[in-house]
Amino acid sequence: MSVYENQNQGKGPTLEFWLDLSSNYSYLSAMRIDQEAAARCVRVEWKPFLLGPIFRELGWTRPLFVVQEEKGRYVWQDMVRQCRKYAIQWQKPSEFPRNTLLAARVAVLGNSAPWVGDFCREIMTLNFGYDRPVDSAETVSAVLDQLGLDTAYLLAQATTQENKEVLRKQTSDARARGIFGAPTFLVGDEMFWGNDRLEDALDLAAESN
Amino acid sequence: MSVYENQNQGKGPTLEFWLDLSSNYSYLSAMRIDQEAAARCVRVEWKPFLLGPIFRELGWTRPLFVVQEEKGRYVWQDMVRQCRKYAIQWQKPSEFPRNTLLAARVAVLGNSAPWVGDFCREIMTLNFGYDRPVDSAETVSAVLDQLGLDTAYLLAQATTQENKEVLRKQTSDARARGIFGAPTFLVGDEMFWGNDRLEDALDLAAESN
Repeated sequence: MSVYENQNQGKGPTLEFWLDLSSNYSYLSAMRIDQEAAARCVRVEWKPFLLGPIFRELGWTRPLFVVQEEKGRYVWQDMVRQCRKYAIQWQKPSEFPRNTLLAARVAVLGNSAPWVGDFCREIMTLNFGYDRPVDSAETVSAVLDQLGLDTAYLLAQATTQENKEVLRKQTSDARARGIFGAPTFLVGDEMFWGNDRLEDALDLAAESN
Repeated sequence: MSVYENQNQGKGPTLEFWLDLSSNYSYLSAMRIDQEAAARCVRVEWKPFLLGPIFRELGWTRPLFVVQEEKGRYVWQDMVRQCRKYAIQWQKPSEFPRNTLLAARVAVLGNSAPWVGDFCREIMTLNFGYDRPVDSAETVSAVLDQLGLDTAYLLAQATTQENKEVLRKQTSDARARGIFGAPTFLVGDEMFWGNDRLEDALDLAAESN
């Protein structure tokens, strides 16, 4: 990171993007956020976390729209239309929600590193764009390789006890901030839930410069 | 209704707007739909129904976001911002959901009559714009009077056994069409749920001319 980037860190309008790699609506935002943020000169902090432990703590043992059959069916219709609208690749996952734990551990290593967005998008596109499982070290490695990153180093770091704790901490931070779903956007303490609020959240971030 | 209107009935692009008068997100759509529909030359069929019996049938004894405290808190924040965005009057109701049974019985009398939109908007604005109860015959009468309608006749009609059955039927029709929340927009059998999908639903209706 250059001195200039260092100095710029934490300055200017910023949006926190809290996402779960196994969440379909997080996928829509991951695919759209860079362009929308750039258009408003807003810096995005990627905050991968795990929804599972939060749902469990709230007493929801599985994502609501899996439990609620009617809503569940609707969500897949909605995804087809939303992906068409935003020109995002879509293939209904044959398994949902998919295990993305290893990928999430890699993603927190990056947090707001320049590669984190690309990494998350690749993993989520495999899952939601091509119905591919993404839990194996092979798949995660292939994605890291493709991005030209130091795969061996990142995989080793991802699975250290220390890094597992980082992801746990990020998840409990999410809970402490009042997050109950994904994607969630935070502008300071102002919370916006759902891909449908991406533009509103970015607009507020841009105003809050 | 003029002959011209009669002939035009059922022709041209049409959107069914399924709303519950006690639903806050239905309020947002009720306030926006005329302008958005007119801009696309889409005719709107107002379909008032009751969410309560559907929630009970689905095993949800109260609206989910009342049950789920975190999400509930969020929804009221979201409403403040959404109303500001769309320039819609807002005052958080001190009671939620409010009893709107009588008003719903009046509304089904209108269904797609020219006054139904104005009537629904008046009732919902009292509830969500000014935190006023809307369950009394006095309040409903005042609204009908204000719209220059035949209040005595409509109130008498609204509470006939036959009309109570009409509302029950409209609600079971909603359930049969797969509706699980409000607002819901139907373009043929294509279902869109939530105020955030109003524009998408209207766009599809306009294309389906």
